[in-house]
Amino acid sequence: MSGAFKNCRTVMVTGASRGLGLQIVESLASGSYSPGKIIATARDPSKAKELQNLAGKYSNIHIITLDVVSQDSIEKAGDQVGALVQEEGLNCLINNAGINVVADFQTVTAEKMLDNFHTNSVAPLMVTKTLLPLLKRAAAGGTGMGIHRASVINMSSLLGSVELNWGDRANNFKWYPYRTSKSALNMVTRCMAVDLEEDGILCMALHPGWVRTDMGGPEAPLSPEESVSSVLSVIGGLTEKDHGGFLHYTGEPLPW
Amino acid sequence: MSGAFKNCRTVMVTGASRGLGLQIVESLASGSYSPGKIIATARDPSKAKELQNLAGKYSNIHIITLDVVSQDSIEKAGDQVGALVQEEGLNCLINNAGINVVADFQTVTAEKMLDNFHTNSVAPLMVTKTLLPLLKRAAAGGTGMGIHRASVINMSSLLGSVELNWGDRANNFKWYPYRTSKSALNMVTRCMAVDLEEDGILCMALHPGWVRTDMGGPEAPLSPEESVSSVLSVIGGLTEKDHGGFLHYTGEPLPW
Ligand SMILES: NC(=O)c1ccc[n+]([C@@H]2O[C@H](COP(=O)([O-])OP(=O)(O)OC[C@H]3O[C@@H](n4cnc5c(N)ncnc54)[C@H](OP(=O)(O)O)[C@@H]3O)[C@@H](O)[C@H]2O)c1
Ligand SMILES: NC(=O)c1ccc[n+]([C@@H]2O[C@H](COP(=O)([O-])OP(=O)(O)OC[C@H]3O[C@@H](n4cnc5c(N)ncnc54)[C@H](OP(=O)(O)O)[C@@H]3O)[C@@H](O)[C@H]2O)c1
Repeated sequence: MSGAFKNCRTVMVTGASRGLGLQIVESLASGSYSPGKIIATARDPSKAKELQNLAGKYSNIHIITLDVVSQDSIEKAGDQVGALVQEEGLNCLINNAGINVVADFQTVTAEKMLDNFHTNSVAPLMVTKTLLPLLKRAAAGGTGMGIHRASVINMSSLLGSVELNWGDRANNFKWYPYRTSKSALNMVTRCMAVDLEEDGILCMALHPGWVRTDMGGPEAPLSPEESVSSVLSVIGGLTEKDHGGFLHYTGEPLPW
Repeated sequence: MSGAFKNCRTVMVTGASRGLGLQIVESLASGSYSPGKIIATARDPSKAKELQNLAGKYSNIHIITLDVVSQDSIEKAGDQVGALVQEEGLNCLINNAGINVVADFQTVTAEKMLDNFHTNSVAPLMVTKTLLPLLKRAAAGGTGMGIHRASVINMSSLLGSVELNWGDRANNFKWYPYRTSKSALNMVTRCMAVDLEEDGILCMALHPGWVRTDMGGPEAPLSPEESVSSVLSVIGGLTEKDHGGFLHYTGEPLPW
């Protein structure tokens, strides 16, 4: 991804305490063209030791508290991000925070469905709404679409593809709350793409691959470094043609 | 749809107090081959005067109280349906109850998203789970798939298609909670199709068209009679090939 973030001055990542979010922050900070401001949010920064260490090492990492299911927390974080980015606005918002409330047909409950939906589908919408003025500011006067201007990247999942949830693939992960939350996130992404287009803000959904994080587990084929290296080069290369789309971390389009 | 329900002995419709649910009950009851038992559920039957009138006229209509967002209500209804259908089981469950919590990007809140998701996406799952023993009973020993055996029909919407939410179509109905809830319902449908297949229970999502009900409004092109006539002939003709699918009321497949 070397160079891919050259024209991105400000980036914000939710759920940066561990897993992919933490790796995104690390890879961006240590890259050859590091954004001027990397805003790493965590719901409890005091517990995010690795993130704290990174911020000690790289002065462009700014840690902000954000619990994505709390409207109050979203608004406070929005104010802090505004104070930080000032007139530059926000070039790239990565809605990465997510949970997997594992439940199959037998064990699923309404509460599990609602919890997973709140964090994975509703929160990215509410966070984006609150940060819209900063995204608009970054997009103003620019041309084309991409992270040089303003962009919203929603970390979705291949498991959110209704089309692909069939045959052998379907029998592997019968996770009702998670799958449903990610297909709902794909619709949220598409709705936002329609609405943010006139402001020149790119919006898309991205599958990071199956990765060895707390969520992905030890059997996953990709290391966080491998996934994030691809993810960042895909994000760095986004243009108009990717607006409203759903991409695999390899850059290929995925079916809804 | 004459004849289409010939081999369906028991059918249950949620949200039968008005709109499409009420029309489905009426059309089934007045059809030439009326199912032995039409179970019409309403969250408050005492207020559902038209349904009461229909039940007075047709003795095969059985009214049961069901608020689809209450687990307690779902379980009570499940017991009553079980007592009613006995060894026949349930051939066709139509998850029709739904709401449209209208909100665009500016007015959407987490609460609106969660409310619409609960009624439109989670409730059909919880209702189906509870009725599974009755669906299994109806499916046992049968061959093929369809309403002669056991089936779950989820009333979805074209507005739940992520693919079609683009271009001119997208600019008409910028309803975040509703669109998201219906795409989530499509995933729930697909997950259930995967899980219910081994029991021979067909599961699919259906778009009834844009219809003049309280929800559809007076501008809609279709009358409830027109929509339901098509809807019932599609449901009556379902086979294995429609399992896990998403159909237009005309019978054509829709993209996810
Ligand atoms: N790993 C995979 O194979 C894979 C595959 C496809 C998609 N994804 C998606 O990629 C994203 C990151 O996954 P991951 O593997 O890095 O998961 P992870 O290791 O479980 O980390 C999840 C992150 O989200 C944060 N988070 C959860 N709820 C939050 C809330 N309410 N407010 C703020 N932060 C919250 C967690 O913070 P705390 O430390 O405070 O809990 C943590 O930082 C998720 O959206 C996931 O669905 C992952
Ligand atoms: N009309 C259209 O153009 C259109 C288009 C696409 C899809 N659809 C779908 O078709 C279905 C029926 O729509 P409609 O046009 O007939 O809507 P409607 O006229 O607004 O009627 C909705 C029905 O759902 C019931 N309902 C809502 N919440 C409920 C709950 N918690 N428990 C039990 N019942 C509940 C209502 O009962 P109460 O009387 O107690 O409120 C009513 O019977 C919905 O799923 C809708 O999304 C409609």
